[in-house]
Amino acid sequence: MGDKKTTLVVFSGDLDKALAGFIIATGSAAMGNQVAMFFTFWGLNILRKKQAVPVKKSWMDKMFGWMLPRGPQKLGLSKLHFGGLGPIMMRATMKKKNVATLDELIQLAQELDVKLIACTMSMEVLGIQKEELIDGLEYAGVATYISEANAGNINLFV
Amino acid sequence: MGDKKTTLVVFSGDLDKALAGFIIATGSAAMGNQVAMFFTFWGLNILRKKQAVPVKKSWMDKMFGWMLPRGPQKLGLSKLHFGGLGPIMMRATMKKKNVATLDELIQLAQELDVKLIACTMSMEVLGIQKEELIDGLEYAGVATYISEANAGNINLFV
Amino acid sequence: MGDKKTTLVVFSGDLDKALAGFIIATGSAAMGNQVAMFFTFWGLNILRKKQAVPVKKSWMDKMFGWMLPRGPQKLGLSKLHFGGLGPIMMRATMKKKNVATLDELIQLAQELDVKLIACTMSMEVLGIQKEELIDGLEYAGVATYISEANAGNINLFV
Repeated sequence: MGDKKTTLVVFSGDLDKALAGFIIATGSAAMGNQVAMFFTFWGLNILRKKQAVPVKKSWMDKMFGWMLPRGPQKLGLSKLHFGGLGPIMMRATMKKKNVATLDELIQLAQELDVKLIACTMSMEVLGIQKEELIDGLEYAGVATYISEANAGNINLFV
Repeated sequence: MGDKKTTLVVFSGDLDKALAGFIIATGSAAMGNQVAMFFTFWGLNILRKKQAVPVKKSWMDKMFGWMLPRGPQKLGLSKLHFGGLGPIMMRATMKKKNVATLDELIQLAQELDVKLIACTMSMEVLGIQKEELIDGLEYAGVATYISEANAGNINLFV
Repeated sequence: MGDKKTTLVVFSGDLDKALAGFIIATGSAAMGNQVAMFFTFWGLNILRKKQAVPVKKSWMDKMFGWMLPRGPQKLGLSKLHFGGLGPIMMRATMKKKNVATLDELIQLAQELDVKLIACTMSMEVLGIQKEELIDGLEYAGVATYISEANAGNINLFV
């Protein structure tokens, strides 16, 4: 790996922003940058497993769990939602044009050693537990982010 | 203070993004970074006093004043609004889980010498006057931002 | 030109975010920074010509073409939409207060040698062709962005 560093705070849980974030992350990694992505707030939705995982939750945490989308295939768009038509069109056109899906980009990121880090404070707030997130993640707080980003060449908030 | 610098452009006036911005800002400051936050457009709403302040305004400026939320406790969420339920749930769960409120984070930022800078051009556009904003702010334009950010290790747009 | 660099990923196609992006870009350039703006996803809408341009498109690409706004004067706001009232008020108040319009800022950016780069992958996904975008653009992919941003002092995602 090179000595250039990229960090992304992935705050958004929108499909389009997640795609942009992962394209920048995997593009950076492919060019030799060390890359770390920090998933906070709605960004955690990107990392949720498709299936419901049986964990003990408070009533409020359960409610957040129901309200929030579970994984890449359930995310909406930040724009052009059109009652759900936008996301369907976007997924269809990307498939037709052979653009990588978000699922594929996440896998590619992991193969390229992009660090995927779930923000523990956001997990606490939204009542999301480790068992509900995909494998291969790291868990950290804001201090880890600051250390990494202080040494970063590219630091973005998505 | 250390010699690392963090700058944030706080463009958004959403509660969740404001929280993320202030967590990064106070986290940076706690780790020794010099931190400056530039509040532009809707981000100015975060700095508004809770009470209406009697100032002279044009009809258009008054209208913006009515339409825009006044201070941290009136901000909505960027997602999961659910007719106002989302913000209530978010505030409730953060309180229950002892996460700092936005009001507390703003105070913490000021105690940690985070510079809070209101963008004067945005104030002009939205018709917001100094009297309507909280105490302890600095006022500046884009040139000040560029100077600070050119020397920044972490520069984010929130 | 100086040796400081600014890059912006303009992901959003909202009027307010576009304004913020161009104010930072032109401000940077005016202070001697080299500036490159990468327009991806909805950000491409900012660069569309006002008039429909007769190009051959698939059914899906045509549909995206109809759904997406064509150029600066058709963009909405990220907040305060109020059924179209927000953007009208914003444009009116900016005009009254002599703030540059987005059209003027784009022209200013070009005069200041800000590189305006359209993301070719996003063009492919949204079915947008070169003929439909304004003159004076460069065309590139994520690799170009990473190279530029690795050398950037200020890198933002808008």
